[in-house]
Amino acid sequence: MMRALDLAEAVEAGDITPAALVEMCAERARESEGLHLFAHLDLERARAAAASQRLDAGLFGLPIGIKDIIDTAHLPTRYGSPIYAKNYRPPSDAAIVSVIEEACGIVLGKTVTTEFAFLQPSETLNPHDAKRTPGGSSSGSAAAVAAGVLPLALGTQTGGSVIRPASFCGVAAIKPSYRLLPMQGVKPFAPLLDTLGVFGARVVDIAFALSVLAGRPLRVDGQDFGTPTFGVARQPFAGAPEPEAEAGLNVAIRALEQAGARVVEAEFGPLAAKAHAGHKVINNYEGAQSLLFELRHKREKLSPILIEALEDGHATPPEVYDGVRGDAMRARREVEAVFQPVDAILTYAAPGYPPTPESTGDARYNKLMTLLGVPAVNVPLPPALAGEWPLGVQVVAGFGEDLRALAAAAFLEDALGRL
Amino acid sequence: MMRALDLAEAVEAGDITPAALVEMCAERARESEGLHLFAHLDLERARAAAASQRLDAGLFGLPIGIKDIIDTAHLPTRYGSPIYAKNYRPPSDAAIVSVIEEACGIVLGKTVTTEFAFLQPSETLNPHDAKRTPGGSSSGSAAAVAAGVLPLALGTQTGGSVIRPASFCGVAAIKPSYRLLPMQGVKPFAPLLDTLGVFGARVVDIAFALSVLAGRPLRVDGQDFGTPTFGVARQPFAGAPEPEAEAGLNVAIRALEQAGARVVEAEFGPLAAKAHAGHKVINNYEGAQSLLFELRHKREKLSPILIEALEDGHATPPEVYDGVRGDAMRARREVEAVFQPVDAILTYAAPGYPPTPESTGDARYNKLMTLLGVPAVNVPLPPALAGEWPLGVQVVAGFGEDLRALAAAAFLEDALGRL
Repeated sequence: MMRALDLAEAVEAGDITPAALVEMCAERARESEGLHLFAHLDLERARAAAASQRLDAGLFGLPIGIKDIIDTAHLPTRYGSPIYAKNYRPPSDAAIVSVIEEACGIVLGKTVTTEFAFLQPSETLNPHDAKRTPGGSSSGSAAAVAAGVLPLALGTQTGGSVIRPASFCGVAAIKPSYRLLPMQGVKPFAPLLDTLGVFGARVVDIAFALSVLAGRPLRVDGQDFGTPTFGVARQPFAGAPEPEAEAGLNVAIRALEQAGARVVEAEFGPLAAKAHAGHKVINNYEGAQSLLFELRHKREKLSPILIEALEDGHATPPEVYDGVRGDAMRARREVEAVFQPVDAILTYAAPGYPPTPESTGDARYNKLMTLLGVPAVNVPLPPALAGEWPLGVQVVAGFGEDLRALAAAAFLEDALGRL
Repeated sequence: MMRALDLAEAVEAGDITPAALVEMCAERARESEGLHLFAHLDLERARAAAASQRLDAGLFGLPIGIKDIIDTAHLPTRYGSPIYAKNYRPPSDAAIVSVIEEACGIVLGKTVTTEFAFLQPSETLNPHDAKRTPGGSSSGSAAAVAAGVLPLALGTQTGGSVIRPASFCGVAAIKPSYRLLPMQGVKPFAPLLDTLGVFGARVVDIAFALSVLAGRPLRVDGQDFGTPTFGVARQPFAGAPEPEAEAGLNVAIRALEQAGARVVEAEFGPLAAKAHAGHKVINNYEGAQSLLFELRHKREKLSPILIEALEDGHATPPEVYDGVRGDAMRARREVEAVFQPVDAILTYAAPGYPPTPESTGDARYNKLMTLLGVPAVNVPLPPALAGEWPLGVQVVAGFGEDLRALAAAAFLEDALGRL
């Protein structure tokens, strides 16, 4: 995989040029064509950007992939749906795309998203095994980083669309605190849940990128944050995991304990369990608002699984939605007490290994974190520890504590490497 | 003015047809061409809708104006800016437009908005006096209802863009609780603040429309909600009003007391005052995110007043924004205690009469309500009580208490009528 932080430092030191990075990505993209990573690749535009701009700060000319649910004025934007013509270009860039360009990032192309970032599998293959899903909905972004085609890529999460594909593809990723990254110009599904996230090779890479994109001090490389305390929360209200996920969690606990961290049991309270159960109501209700035009006028071009969710949401009485939204707000206050005594919560990132590609996998351990708006990081287990397929664990901190989540995740990643 | 509720009942009773309503609006629009109410009027499409659809529920075929900051796939959408070509059509309707069409409303056209719903005055004139501003940013919507051209119109408020023009034009309007109406497909300015609202002739009219659009029981006609208690809060942190606004508030207090209502003094606490002061930070910071593409690539087509605000927001350190956002969240909790002992808060809707058209007027008594996300209603004083120009007062209730705000506003409107 391409290590974003190392590459940025190499550019800064003059050891490599952004133009050479673009060529490296171009070559790897060519070699990986069969994985269907990109909805659109614009190498000429990336080459021009690498040649013309000053790229001496921020992302230092690093190529980045933009999930195709995010508006780009200069690149086709299809939201993973045949409703949008092959050459549809929004009139303006999403805020995050302008932020990237201001921060000396080079947009290499649009990565494949599932249809409107929902559950219908995309054509992207898992780089580790074409017979397993890369996960969704940020399929192209997770797989492109895993395949070593891109050092960085943007995703979005409404249920588990960043953390799940990261676990399935064996890459690091963060879904930051709600609204840490600006959502203007990202096609909405459920605005109370939709959150931009970042994929990279390692925790230090995503921390570096998030620090630049959010304009806040979030880097965790070369710093000592001390030895964190972890609370292990298995989210029993979300159902039991498969044996590999339980084994992976226990490997992580062992690594932490061997590294000297304190690991205690933790538990999300009854309001969190209730909020978890309500995620689907908010998702479908707001999704039906967001896609009501498409549902009414372009129904024949929507997948059956999406139509079912939108119709469910459309039939949900507003007072049911209001009740669930109130539960979610109360749960956000309740969980402050869960995060307070620890540095981070450790939980499953996914129920197990990536399943076969008829589905994008299950987001049941991610939904609560999305609904709470709290930062969540996928830490991939090293291949020797993960076993046959990739597997990650999820590190979570309280709202606004993105640095704490990243520092704890980096500690865990380091501990796993030394196991 | 056209009374939405009466017209809907007349359609239901078979006394008038939606087609006749469209013709009535068309004729009045023709007579009012000099007011520059519409960015685009599509009478043919409205006529076709009136003729073809079943319009036997919801809005009963009432024509409605859509502020041109709201996406419409079938009508040009320019956001009040020359950046967007005269024939630009978004690929899909905003959620609220689909909701209107599902609810048997007839979109008559796009009403004029100021540039991206900010402060640069639009070409719309105040129907009461061409030498006074209609207010902004929902200029066309407020003026079209005031001119009797439309029974209903949609606006949006980020500072005071619904309540202020309603006060200046002498119409009723509500800025409902944050997110009561779906924002997907409305061009964002500051997403933490942006809120859809509704203009109509009387409180019962906007309550009727909001009830349909929000799908919640919010009607206040023909019901007895008892005699409300009002708390008068003058928002001293926002500065003193002009004498007419103070006189208007006192007229409202007198009307309430004569109608038997209890009127007590109330005060927003120190956190609210702090949050009020922070409104501009959130507005400009998020505005700079929302319009970063336009600022970077189309700067020559932006007004100086907008560029100044965007550059201020762009230069705001993220930690300052984070601090103000935190203040706002704490203020939302603090004010629960202000609303608890009363049914509604009564305050100024605007600092005074509509000023001359070099500005759209001052939103200083509206900003806190937008930031708190609480429902706010403009109740216009009857012309004989208002004086030379229109003037309203603002009725506010706690978050989610839209029905309470509307019921209190209707009580006040009735009391004013009997003064």
